[in-house]
Amino acid sequence: MSELPVQIFEVGPRDGLQNEKQILGLADKIWLVQALAAAGLRDLETGSFVRPDKVPQMADTEALAQHFVKHPPVNPHGSTRMWYLVPNQKGLERAIASGATHVAFFTAVSDSFNKKNIGKSVDESFVEMKQLMIDAKKHSLKVRGYVSTVWGCPFEGRIAPAHALLVLEKMLELGVDQLSIGDTIGVANPSGVKEILAPLIRAHGVEKMAVHFHDTRGTALANALQSYELGIRAFDASLGGLGGCPFAPGAAGNLATEDLVYFFKEMGIECGVNYRALCETSVELFKRMKKTIHSSKALQAYVANCTKNSVWDS
Amino acid sequence: MSELPVQIFEVGPRDGLQNEKQILGLADKIWLVQALAAAGLRDLETGSFVRPDKVPQMADTEALAQHFVKHPPVNPHGSTRMWYLVPNQKGLERAIASGATHVAFFTAVSDSFNKKNIGKSVDESFVEMKQLMIDAKKHSLKVRGYVSTVWGCPFEGRIAPAHALLVLEKMLELGVDQLSIGDTIGVANPSGVKEILAPLIRAHGVEKMAVHFHDTRGTALANALQSYELGIRAFDASLGGLGGCPFAPGAAGNLATEDLVYFFKEMGIECGVNYRALCETSVELFKRMKKTIHSSKALQAYVANCTKNSVWDS
Repeated sequence: MSELPVQIFEVGPRDGLQNEKQILGLADKIWLVQALAAAGLRDLETGSFVRPDKVPQMADTEALAQHFVKHPPVNPHGSTRMWYLVPNQKGLERAIASGATHVAFFTAVSDSFNKKNIGKSVDESFVEMKQLMIDAKKHSLKVRGYVSTVWGCPFEGRIAPAHALLVLEKMLELGVDQLSIGDTIGVANPSGVKEILAPLIRAHGVEKMAVHFHDTRGTALANALQSYELGIRAFDASLGGLGGCPFAPGAAGNLATEDLVYFFKEMGIECGVNYRALCETSVELFKRMKKTIHSSKALQAYVANCTKNSVWDS
Repeated sequence: MSELPVQIFEVGPRDGLQNEKQILGLADKIWLVQALAAAGLRDLETGSFVRPDKVPQMADTEALAQHFVKHPPVNPHGSTRMWYLVPNQKGLERAIASGATHVAFFTAVSDSFNKKNIGKSVDESFVEMKQLMIDAKKHSLKVRGYVSTVWGCPFEGRIAPAHALLVLEKMLELGVDQLSIGDTIGVANPSGVKEILAPLIRAHGVEKMAVHFHDTRGTALANALQSYELGIRAFDASLGGLGGCPFAPGAAGNLATEDLVYFFKEMGIECGVNYRALCETSVELFKRMKKTIHSSKALQAYVANCTKNSVWDS
């Protein structure tokens, strides 16, 4: 799924905005998705077919999906893959009715987290996802599978790697096109990353693997480096680091797309994203949201330096 | 110089506080140094013998040094090495008169930076340091040598690795006990880190090497990981990430000690620092300075989580 040396999977419009109190309007979301695609991001998690009364931030996902079916965003690399999160049968039906072609299923490694998040045990969620997968294949949808809390759970603490691996294997057996391996609360470290990824890659290769790190304790980029060295080429990120963990208010959220893109740019690894265009998009989004940038150091440096046109911040 | 598997060299009281507008009083500084030593930090850059009229933040370094000669801070690992920055002959004389036993010299890789910083070319600074070294040895002082702007200069842009290596070699030839290799404006990346460290370690071993990363663009911990993998065991850091780059206002500064200590703790690498005590010290310092924590994600997570007593933030 990665035509470029590295694939960046932008989760900001969904995972990022869903965790913001403020609700971004439909017109702003359309602008945001278009701007991100124009910056060269090929994979965008655009929305979520969840209950609008429970997650009002995502209430306009139908409208958003339908808009982009008619008017696909312009992307310098060709098409943009628009992904939609789908929690259950009802959500899948809505996604299909809205013309979605790429959907994402999700579960977690820990029962406590899953129960709080979706009211189901991990096993129960697999029973449901099995059915969803049959319907998704029937409609030739591409499917991404998220597994959360792989390295730690806010309720259960540290997770035994053997247990995490079992759940990850189950998600692969389900037949997903891509597996997103998630450090939901930002507690992974490079040793732990290796402990999970090395056996998984030995058994299944890297083709379908993606990593999803949170930067809660500043370790996300070090974990990304470790993953890259192990062969991983697909990385989730959120513009401006949007998407804090609801269990740690005040703490940083997703790995910021700017930090990751800056990193690859400086490492000489092509990820297809125009760094300046990405930063300008984030600056504009934060302006529209009247929000302070605090979760992406690269973006903060860009804002501080850009008038000087430094060789790094452009 | 590292009795522990990893040596953390705390630069906050000097490099951190010197870059703050607000001047911390002597009593607060004494408290801070004692608290850091009590948390297990063995190497503390305590002050700087520069001109008080030029750097008022460091005007009480004499008083501080004299205090700690009489009352060495209590440290769970034994003694604390108190380091003082010395820019010239006059500074060295003041250091010796104040009873300092550990001093640090400094230069940069780029002439433009050096001229703006100390009014001397790199070559001129080596002429002066040669003389300083003779006097330092005469008084049996331990000497640390800082080399700044190794990976990039705010005025000259990217630095050719071959040139940086020449200056680093010169600092080693001077006879320093430890060489601190500095990414002053936070533009290093793991590839570039390897480009500098690998040949240096091949020629001289790791014994005297320390790395000094800034986290301006969020890459410091990834660079630390790369350095660790290359064999480096001494790392500079500043509590709370204090010490922004004066050339990029609003951007993050030094690698935060909390981020680094959290990282090693989670990696199972002993650096001798009590994480909770360190975080509590930073929280108290920021309270006294009426300053917001924005540069250390680990510390922000600690503050957000600590009441929950999570297995990570303690």
